[in-house]
Amino acid sequence: MPNYQARVFVTLKPSILDPQGRTVERSLSHLGQPVSGVRVGKYIELQLEGEHTEVESRLKDIAENVLSNPVMENVRWELEERTLEPA
Amino acid sequence: MPNYQARVFVTLKPSILDPQGRTVERSLSHLGQPVSGVRVGKYIELQLEGEHTEVESRLKDIAENVLSNPVMENVRWELEERTLEPA
Repeated sequence: MPNYQARVFVTLKPSILDPQGRTVERSLSHLGQPVSGVRVGKYIELQLEGEHTEVESRLKDIAENVLSNPVMENVRWELEERTLEPA
Repeated sequence: MPNYQARVFVTLKPSILDPQGRTVERSLSHLGQPVSGVRVGKYIELQLEGEHTEVESRLKDIAENVLSNPVMENVRWELEERTLEPA
């Protein structure tokens, strides 16, 4: 059965204040590294097995309903087939 | 001055136990969504201004020395120029 590597990116919606991002931004400026628009979110890697269409719909369900909170967060994901090295 | 959008991905080194990843993996199985290899990390977006080479070296410094802990974490990043819409 094909094996897939998924990467899920969860960020706060732009309209929501991101205190972590603000803190990182201020710390970086104090360190002499001026940056802007800092947003801190979650990055989740996971592997799924199955046919491509089935895995895609399962990943959508997992990303939208388990790994993120649709009220406050945006979520996007990437899916690529893993080529398993011969044992 | 050119404006750049950076995306930084911080994950625990594979040799390090990822309790968060384990918890997510178990919860997903209980929900009838068997997955494997779950790793939870940080995803940081930020914007930098300056010439490309200068921005690249600043981002390397920020990613490796501020946003991640080289002892326990791996870090990688992406950098792309932002095309600013005319005001």
